[in-house]
Amino acid sequence: MSKKESDRRQFLKKGAALVGLAAGATAARSAGAQSVAPPSGHPLQDALTKEAANTYEGTPGPAPGQKFDAVYGVRSRYEVSGRVGGIGAFHHGPNGKLSRPFLGAMTPLQDVIGIITPNALHYYDSHGYLPPDIDPKQHRLMVHGMVDRPMTFTLDDLKRLPAVTRTHFIECNANGTTSSYGGNDPEATPQITHGLTSCSMWTGVLLSRVLEMVGAQKGATWILAEAAEGTRFSKGIPMAKALDDCLLAYGQNGEAVRPEQGYPLRLISPGYEGIYNVKWLSRLELTDSPEISQRELYYNTTVEEGKFADHRNRWFRFEMGTNSVITRPAGGQRLESHGFYEITGLAWSGAGAIRRVEVSTDNGRTWKDAEIQGPVHSKSHTRFGFSWNWNGEETLLMSRSTDERGQVQPTLAELGAVWDVSAEYLRKHFLGHVNAIRPWKVASDGSVYNAI
Amino acid sequence: MSKKESDRRQFLKKGAALVGLAAGATAARSAGAQSVAPPSGHPLQDALTKEAANTYEGTPGPAPGQKFDAVYGVRSRYEVSGRVGGIGAFHHGPNGKLSRPFLGAMTPLQDVIGIITPNALHYYDSHGYLPPDIDPKQHRLMVHGMVDRPMTFTLDDLKRLPAVTRTHFIECNANGTTSSYGGNDPEATPQITHGLTSCSMWTGVLLSRVLEMVGAQKGATWILAEAAEGTRFSKGIPMAKALDDCLLAYGQNGEAVRPEQGYPLRLISPGYEGIYNVKWLSRLELTDSPEISQRELYYNTTVEEGKFADHRNRWFRFEMGTNSVITRPAGGQRLESHGFYEITGLAWSGAGAIRRVEVSTDNGRTWKDAEIQGPVHSKSHTRFGFSWNWNGEETLLMSRSTDERGQVQPTLAELGAVWDVSAEYLRKHFLGHVNAIRPWKVASDGSVYNAI
Repeated sequence: MSKKESDRRQFLKKGAALVGLAAGATAARSAGAQSVAPPSGHPLQDALTKEAANTYEGTPGPAPGQKFDAVYGVRSRYEVSGRVGGIGAFHHGPNGKLSRPFLGAMTPLQDVIGIITPNALHYYDSHGYLPPDIDPKQHRLMVHGMVDRPMTFTLDDLKRLPAVTRTHFIECNANGTTSSYGGNDPEATPQITHGLTSCSMWTGVLLSRVLEMVGAQKGATWILAEAAEGTRFSKGIPMAKALDDCLLAYGQNGEAVRPEQGYPLRLISPGYEGIYNVKWLSRLELTDSPEISQRELYYNTTVEEGKFADHRNRWFRFEMGTNSVITRPAGGQRLESHGFYEITGLAWSGAGAIRRVEVSTDNGRTWKDAEIQGPVHSKSHTRFGFSWNWNGEETLLMSRSTDERGQVQPTLAELGAVWDVSAEYLRKHFLGHVNAIRPWKVASDGSVYNAI
Repeated sequence: MSKKESDRRQFLKKGAALVGLAAGATAARSAGAQSVAPPSGHPLQDALTKEAANTYEGTPGPAPGQKFDAVYGVRSRYEVSGRVGGIGAFHHGPNGKLSRPFLGAMTPLQDVIGIITPNALHYYDSHGYLPPDIDPKQHRLMVHGMVDRPMTFTLDDLKRLPAVTRTHFIECNANGTTSSYGGNDPEATPQITHGLTSCSMWTGVLLSRVLEMVGAQKGATWILAEAAEGTRFSKGIPMAKALDDCLLAYGQNGEAVRPEQGYPLRLISPGYEGIYNVKWLSRLELTDSPEISQRELYYNTTVEEGKFADHRNRWFRFEMGTNSVITRPAGGQRLESHGFYEITGLAWSGAGAIRRVEVSTDNGRTWKDAEIQGPVHSKSHTRFGFSWNWNGEETLLMSRSTDERGQVQPTLAELGAVWDVSAEYLRKHFLGHVNAIRPWKVASDGSVYNAI
């Protein structure tokens, strides 16, 4: 922040600014707005004086602890929902050692309203620790390799190109696991069971447009995307995906992409595992084969612990399955009384749009269609609602999504069958891509528990 | 914030938290997550030690001034766009006196990306000064008057009802004025000319549903909506509008409505003047006639200064007209070189969806269709783009919107003709509802000026 900008913000924060919003005044000229003293004896002078005491016409003054920022607003002091997370290690590699440190945090899905995750609550896994501190004026995106015209773009260059805005979730492939991260804990909340997915309106340039500018060559089938962080994280994207719907995003929910999310530029690979949405994007190299980095070998395959002594992995499993979770009533909450409740939750799929969500309130015996509420976007969180009258008896609440490809969200046992393991195995061993139906148990006292 | 919650946040902020995200650990149980010490000699201990110095595997430590909040994130320190505003008086009443104080601030539209305004940058006019400090647990909405069953709702009651999420702009009727607020200043930015409109995804209960619950009586034709602020601001809404698309909103862009926007509950009257979107909503009274409060007489009519000695006002002019503004290139900006630019801007209408946006780059001689980019919602900001090759000559850039009702955005002269005044008159006297085409002059040195 420049000295001038800093001064302006301080000035406005002190509540002493007058920038000519009175009728007829025209002082509010620019972002570096001037202060204009009111004429002596003018009614505004009274207003200013009263403002200093923060009272006027019965408007109460600030309560103890009340926060207010005229320039860049803050939420109510009564809103305290936050990400939870911490540092740890990502997971074991085939050598049984912890492979890399992890600073991550999960979105409080039970508190998110609608389909958009506030930027301040978007989940993250920072690869190292603090996100890199990138000056956007210095940042560059280099596009090279199998191209006719290698090019380097500044942020301003990219902003001079036609933009699109798309609503997409980003999800870690470990989301929903029933073995780790507290996913099998009876007291787990939706934040703990599914908080590694978040959804934003991303704005940027279609990658296909940039590939057209640089002249992608015919033999180029893969793109290596690299991050401008200390460890130079990179990930390979198939060319077909790049041409389909990948975005070079500089905007997130109306403002610049947040630092934890890749400021100032992130590759968005809609519906793919979070790790394909490369943050702090600084280099794209077009090649004719996938680059299998050591990191990729160890971290980014589907790891199957214990059972498979040969360390067999599932490769090139990019797309996240159809999924859903009831966010209210859900684990960690309590129904205060019998009677009417609106069951609400989120559904999403890496394959496209959500077409149907069903809800069961009787231990899975019967399923009824939930109402899809509001905007339905492809590869986006989608809100559903279902009216329910709780009679006070213990029961299980479950949701089941179906996407536009016809994929139906499986039970844990059905998912295990695909992998040739039991549900019990899945409860004990870590696997990615666990998109199993999540049952919440409502006890007769109204307490709700994770019952996977 | 509870003591426990505060402790947890402090703990996480210090970066010393470990909540079991390592493989196999299950400590991340709930929002009140526990700290779990790693086993002695465990690789995690090394990670913790290195974390304390904020370095690991070449990841640089924090830069001076770098901010990071693990729980509720913050934007990059390089992003400094803010609202501008200040205190003043709203406008003259018929008695020629300043009528009430004003604490307001305008959205930096030139920096907003996509169609959603970040909550921290949403424009506001606080009616008094600080927004009221409302404890949501104590807040009530009373619905009474011409109803069969008067009812009082808590926030939790409303959240137990089926919800909808809708994207709508809110706009002050003074937005775009060419006489005041800097709107005729050659150096004005889009923030100054049009920053009294913002757009959010609002989540809440349809007012029609609540009216059904209370049993609105047949003769009820108006609803008085009252705010829980010191001055008990109120506004009347026609019943037809209430039944059409009004919302009782508790959510804004995924989180609780912000304090400046009416926390914890705001009436959303899509497409109507901002003042009909009553904040801090605490009471709805059904009546058989509009309530004309003193405040309404003085403040909320369309004021025509100077010319009309009889203080003739336009009543019941609720709906905002079709409007648009180019946000880049725009006043206060500078084109650094000749060549290709993507002209981008926002269009919106209180009558419904935007159907068409045209752009002229040759002083209004010819108009061509712009591209509508991304989601188009009814009564919502809509992003448009237009590819332009600047040849270095001085010219005017203009945009013109058409809405689903066929209304075409007028020139200032065309608007004046409707009101029986000249464009020159409009440049000198305050009127609300000035949705005139805004020309930006690009000078030969690349500087852009307001040329209304």
